Amino acid sequence: MANSKYEYVKSFEQPDHLLKNVYIVVRIDGRGFHKFTTKHDYNKPNDDRGLALMNRAALEVCKEFPDIIIAFGESDEYSFVFKKNCNLFERRSSKISSSIVSYFTSQFVYRWKEYFGDHELKYPPTFDSRCVLYPTDENIKDYLSWRQADTHINNLYNTCYWALVLKGNKTAVEAEETLRGTFSDEKNEMLFTKFEINYNNLPQIYRKGSVIFRKMLQETNESGVTKSKKRLVVEHIDIIGEKFWKENDILKN
Amino acid sequence: MANSKYEYVKSFEQPDHLLKNVYIVVRIDGRGFHKFTTKHDYNKPNDDRGLALMNRAALEVCKEFPDIIIAFGESDEYSFVFKKNCNLFERRSSKISSSIVSYFTSQFVYRWKEYFGDHELKYPPTFDSRCVLYPTDENIKDYLSWRQADTHINNLYNTCYWALVLKGNKTAVEAEETLRGTFSDEKNEMLFTKFEINYNNLPQIYRKGSVIFRKMLQETNESGVTKSKKRLVVEHIDIIGEKFWKENDILKN
Amino acid sequence: MANSKYEYVKSFEQPDHLLKNVYIVVRIDGRGFHKFTTKHDYNKPNDDRGLALMNRAALEVCKEFPDIIIAFGESDEYSFVFKKNCNLFERRSSKISSSIVSYFTSQFVYRWKEYFGDHELKYPPTFDSRCVLYPTDENIKDYLSWRQADTHINNLYNTCYWALVLKGNKTAVEAEETLRGTFSDEKNEMLFTKFEINYNNLPQIYRKGSVIFRKMLQETNESGVTKSKKRLVVEHIDIIGEKFWKENDILKN
Amino acid sequence: MANSKYEYVKSFEQPDHLLKNVYIVVRIDGRGFHKFTTKHDYNKPNDDRGLALMNRAALEVCKEFPDIIIAFGESDEYSFVFKKNCNLFERRSSKISSSIVSYFTSQFVYRWKEYFGDHELKYPPTFDSRCVLYPTDENIKDYLSWRQADTHINNLYNTCYWALVLKGNKTAVEAEETLRGTFSDEKNEMLFTKFEINYNNLPQIYRKGSVIFRKMLQETNESGVTKSKKRLVVEHIDIIGEKFWKENDILKN
Repeated sequence: MANSKYEYVKSFEQPDHLLKNVYIVVRIDGRGFHKFTTKHDYNKPNDDRGLALMNRAALEVCKEFPDIIIAFGESDEYSFVFKKNCNLFERRSSKISSSIVSYFTSQFVYRWKEYFGDHELKYPPTFDSRCVLYPTDENIKDYLSWRQADTHINNLYNTCYWALVLKGNKTAVEAEETLRGTFSDEKNEMLFTKFEINYNNLPQIYRKGSVIFRKMLQETNESGVTKSKKRLVVEHIDIIGEKFWKENDILKN
Repeated sequence: MANSKYEYVKSFEQPDHLLKNVYIVVRIDGRGFHKFTTKHDYNKPNDDRGLALMNRAALEVCKEFPDIIIAFGESDEYSFVFKKNCNLFERRSSKISSSIVSYFTSQFVYRWKEYFGDHELKYPPTFDSRCVLYPTDENIKDYLSWRQADTHINNLYNTCYWALVLKGNKTAVEAEETLRGTFSDEKNEMLFTKFEINYNNLPQIYRKGSVIFRKMLQETNESGVTKSKKRLVVEHIDIIGEKFWKENDILKN
Repeated sequence: MANSKYEYVKSFEQPDHLLKNVYIVVRIDGRGFHKFTTKHDYNKPNDDRGLALMNRAALEVCKEFPDIIIAFGESDEYSFVFKKNCNLFERRSSKISSSIVSYFTSQFVYRWKEYFGDHELKYPPTFDSRCVLYPTDENIKDYLSWRQADTHINNLYNTCYWALVLKGNKTAVEAEETLRGTFSDEKNEMLFTKFEINYNNLPQIYRKGSVIFRKMLQETNESGVTKSKKRLVVEHIDIIGEKFWKENDILKN
Repeated sequence: MANSKYEYVKSFEQPDHLLKNVYIVVRIDGRGFHKFTTKHDYNKPNDDRGLALMNRAALEVCKEFPDIIIAFGESDEYSFVFKKNCNLFERRSSKISSSIVSYFTSQFVYRWKEYFGDHELKYPPTFDSRCVLYPTDENIKDYLSWRQADTHINNLYNTCYWALVLKGNKTAVEAEETLRGTFSDEKNEMLFTKFEINYNNLPQIYRKGSVIFRKMLQETNESGVTKSKKRLVVEHIDIIGEKFWKENDILKN
């Protein structure tokens, strides 16, 4: 049974190497997570266990793939930013995108129990992924700002929506109607006056999402010697303003 | 915090719709499975639990994505063939490829215990995936023949290699040297004379791999009425010859 | 002045090999030909010199690139169909597409005088081009039918439009208004009753466009011996029906 | 004859929009120009008429497509650099690449007589083209440096080769053998001692190629008023060093 007769089929594979010297973003997204979170009794609008599991899986991805310089997560999505001169898998798009989403999913299922305890995983979740390229520092910062602004917008909406449903005894349709066309300040006002929620006092993880990056930390060892070391951290801070970028040496590659 | 300022970054995403009216193959491959199988004490050259888990995960993928008309698996890889007129995710390459590999991985980890029992999963595995297009029936059959011929070639080699190592007390290097440049009939002969293994009597799953497809089955219900029904089956049969294709209505779409 | 320092830039080129075993269509289109034909006093709605020049340039393209099995032209566009197993320039999309459009343009300018005589070329024309892939015989025949049906629709419209303008003393705007929303039979009727034009008697080249292909011809040489020979011909015949495809052995490659 | 039945074929066209915010280079190359220059009695190693015609065609391209910020030409090739935020044809790769090569070819044939006079064009030439993307100023400058260094290397070689053939009475094979493996300084020495050619005194157009760009010029009008105006110029100057880039405001877009 010679294989040579069939090997020509290999030549149908098409190369998909990504352009060099630009940032690569791999964004993963939960598939059907509305149903998934309902079936698994996620707290609404935010479930701390669910967010912690997402962050843990993402952190493991960042450990496994050191070319990732920053990652940003909210809800059921995560964006991983690879340095411009990354040569992982020779920059083959499918290989990068699929390895990231597979490892993330694998971690998510593997560590479910750590975060949800006896609250059993009823069926295995799916994420999809894609690669997007950003040429300049400005572009990649704007990408991350886009996601963080989106986090805020979604969270403000969801906080109102679930307040109306859970505390205001509205139906889903009524809640949607109440919120249709409202501006941010109206939503803030509604939360405060109707539900005594000061939006700005909500946990940052809900309002800002989660940022994973390597942070320069001062560490003192047993002998009392202090050294600077870069460590992967998960923080819930503003990355839209310049402060974050000035304090952290993320894009110098 | 208006998002409109940053939304331009969305336009950096590039469409990746696959050509219409051709077969789409999504092939997934284990990443670092040499280490993974060693760490998890897989039997060599073939581990029945490992193969059964791969087949189960693949079967679940075929259930979830009914546009898959046939799938073929061996070792740590699986190929899923989508019908030519498939319009899943509007034929977006990343979306198809990533959803399949994510769901497969998810099933693999989720069902580990079903197949390995108390033999714990020590760390989460990764698979990668890619899409390849095949225009004609001949091309797609040749693709599957290529994989099945490869299964045979690898399995014959691995059977010899592990016989030499496990029963012949050879080192890895010695085993490789013994096998270098040998032809199939020499390997068969060696197995038979030295290790009393009749290669052709080994389980088909090792020699032919696993084929998942929808098979027309005659089913008799409680009332004694017999009906033809298409059911997903996993078989270990020859798909290189014409017999399989004549008996099963796989490529008519 | 060593070049090695800069050669890395070569690696920014991205491969663009087209999928194998599918038909490749290169379609070229005149850029700004409304202005070009006006400035060069083309007869309206059809200029025989202009069509003859298009056909000649296309014929030369077919001679130069023997992997083209059929070409179809109308107005300022031409489609060239390459056989499925074509390996021209290793199927690199840019290379194929650009060579065809460049050679076509080159022929168009080079042979202008042959067709337009003293009617001088006032400025050099531009065409653009693209590659499109079609997997099956049915798809490629439908592609060509699409172009031929388009030829008919455009020509019927243009024949009416220019009759209204040139013979009916309508302005451009009035002619457009008169035609807006009319069906084919209404246009035919208008031509016949108002302008005594029997549309079906117009030259086939206007109504059917131009088809270039290799036709089996019986040729008798000086010694009186008759042989069958394939020759490139330009014909203005129906390619939507099955007759053309049955009589000519175009797609067997 | 309804077209709707066939219009589905349009959906087989695949989008090819180039990544935003990166430089686009369209490089065109003569096809079979060894034969073309021989058939048209080009002077060797450099033909002034041929170079002037290339430069003229390229200049007309730059006039027609104002998004081109710089172009570089040598021998039978030309590179056109489009500004990063260029939105010509919505950045569709085929459309950009084919329009440029078509217009260049068109100009080349159209203006042949202006440069070659009675020395007739015997057959129409072909060029091919491709798009390549460069993300940063450094990358695009390195690309242009690569082409200019290549110009020098080729010209030094060709100057030696043709001196050996035309003045040294060597055959082509002998000339190639003489030059095989020689370094630049050896070639310079050979030119000087054997053929009394001081390479550095050769015209810059041969050694540096041709650079087309918009230069800020001081122009005094009839009324004696001096104004700064940007004008397209063709110069034969060094673009590898920083001087050119400092003096000219090319990459600020």
